Amino acid sequence: MPKLRQNIVTGDWVVISPERSKRPEDYVSAAAPKHGVTADCPFCVENNNAYKTQIKEAETKNVYVIPNRYPAFVNEDSVISEGDGFYQDTKSIGAHEVIITKDHNLEIYEDGEEIINELLGVYKARYLEHDKNPVNEYTLIIHNHGPEAGASIDHPHSQLFSSAIMPCYIQKELDGAQKYFELNNKCVFCDMVKTEKESDRRLVYENNEFLVFTFFASRFPFEMWVVPKKHESNFENISDDTQKQLAEALHNAISKLNKSLNFPPFNYWIHTLPHHSENFHQSYHWHIEIAPRVSKFGGYELGSGVVIDVVAPEAAAEFLKKA
Amino acid sequence: MPKLRQNIVTGDWVVISPERSKRPEDYVSAAAPKHGVTADCPFCVENNNAYKTQIKEAETKNVYVIPNRYPAFVNEDSVISEGDGFYQDTKSIGAHEVIITKDHNLEIYEDGEEIINELLGVYKARYLEHDKNPVNEYTLIIHNHGPEAGASIDHPHSQLFSSAIMPCYIQKELDGAQKYFELNNKCVFCDMVKTEKESDRRLVYENNEFLVFTFFASRFPFEMWVVPKKHESNFENISDDTQKQLAEALHNAISKLNKSLNFPPFNYWIHTLPHHSENFHQSYHWHIEIAPRVSKFGGYELGSGVVIDVVAPEAAAEFLKKA
Repeated sequence: MPKLRQNIVTGDWVVISPERSKRPEDYVSAAAPKHGVTADCPFCVENNNAYKTQIKEAETKNVYVIPNRYPAFVNEDSVISEGDGFYQDTKSIGAHEVIITKDHNLEIYEDGEEIINELLGVYKARYLEHDKNPVNEYTLIIHNHGPEAGASIDHPHSQLFSSAIMPCYIQKELDGAQKYFELNNKCVFCDMVKTEKESDRRLVYENNEFLVFTFFASRFPFEMWVVPKKHESNFENISDDTQKQLAEALHNAISKLNKSLNFPPFNYWIHTLPHHSENFHQSYHWHIEIAPRVSKFGGYELGSGVVIDVVAPEAAAEFLKKA
Repeated sequence: MPKLRQNIVTGDWVVISPERSKRPEDYVSAAAPKHGVTADCPFCVENNNAYKTQIKEAETKNVYVIPNRYPAFVNEDSVISEGDGFYQDTKSIGAHEVIITKDHNLEIYEDGEEIINELLGVYKARYLEHDKNPVNEYTLIIHNHGPEAGASIDHPHSQLFSSAIMPCYIQKELDGAQKYFELNNKCVFCDMVKTEKESDRRLVYENNEFLVFTFFASRFPFEMWVVPKKHESNFENISDDTQKQLAEALHNAISKLNKSLNFPPFNYWIHTLPHHSENFHQSYHWHIEIAPRVSKFGGYELGSGVVIDVVAPEAAAEFLKKA
């Protein structure tokens, strides 16, 4: 029997319809898309193509940062719009950077927590850099792994998108969390943490500071959220100790995904408060969402905004926990 | 230079970033995913697997309709919810049907307008059938073509989803169109038709009653909208003559897509007014959106709701028109 579930933050509906699906085991990837060595990889330091444009102050032992060669957002002072009175074209203002681990063959999420901790440190530093620019409304940091997840280059890399606009999905989360706070005088994410800990039906991993669980109203089979147990609205405010705990949690979450589904394609993104925000500190709670890409949206999902998820989050958690 | 564009109906942002892309020519599919004959196709009449469950009154010469074997929405009288006080599971009430052309090898969008006209007639009849059920809030009819577009079965088929909930994307369109109407005392889609006809920069095809154009704020490369020129809120109200004109327009749009991109995967869906709606008749305007699936969403699109489209709609229109 298919079930309707509502995202308790955004209000979006999903249909959980496991009858339509194969068993969780059937989502195991046939071939693990490991990184192959390629002689002309544009992100390899020795090829020096991207490396020569690196942002020097951002470099760490194993990670370097470059401006995206084909940016979706550019750093310009003047906001120029042109239109025909009905439609309008506006310069896409902001920044678009690529955060690259130097070793082409590194399996970031297999090779341990240290490299993840270093990567998270670079995320934080770059976030804080773009926080200085009053033009930026929002910065989203993401990681695409595998061509099915939109990664056009094999060499492991994350991306940072700063924009002068507020992305609609973030605004929806902010508004939904604020509404919950006004009704209940509590943070919805704090209540989520409490519920997941108590029920244990979707819990995948836990350490001192973080919970990893499959999301009740998942848009993706095996979708996991990494949520700090203590209320904190801003990712960039985390201490070095918390960052280490986050590295451990993220490493465990993605290792479990890799072990149980044989290195599937995935994305993750960090949801945090908008830049320069004076509101939402009590109602919003930063977190990471991990989206394995083992299914495809069809016309119903794209035309309605309602996602049909064919793996129940409870079955997904059970399967992931075993790994 | 990347450009920001706003969907004038929903307010959603897209970034048009053709610098990131190859030329339109580079999206031509390598292999045309034509339908192969398979001995055990579950939708072939001669295999009688699905056909024996057909909804008899819905059958026409070349088309038959079955309830989906694994429905996302089911027809039940009782709405039962169960929850833990925080999250809630609700029965997914409504209907889910598969609309199948009998000939496995039919290339619907190559073999002419008559079969499309017949298919549109079945869409209309099934829509009107589900309109009788007061439980249904919305019915979305969609077509998935090719595995990359979410079609798990090769045999050509469309799907109908009736739900007791309002899909969030539809609600956003309704609200946006209503807002535009209140500000301008005009239908935003009527203004869109006027603008597209006058500018001719995104026009792909036109007949007496319909315009086909690439959408200004496209979420998909080569995205096309099929919009009636005259204001009409409800798809199911179209006359037989209008239906023939629609078949011609849809046939031309998808033929151009097939010719220029060598039979790419695609979805389309029909956006119309909700069932039993007393509002929005002046502000809303039914239409079909065609979404070719030649690119993949990455973490930025899925985590922010902002889509980066790497083919400018104007270049897409020029390319499609040539076919």
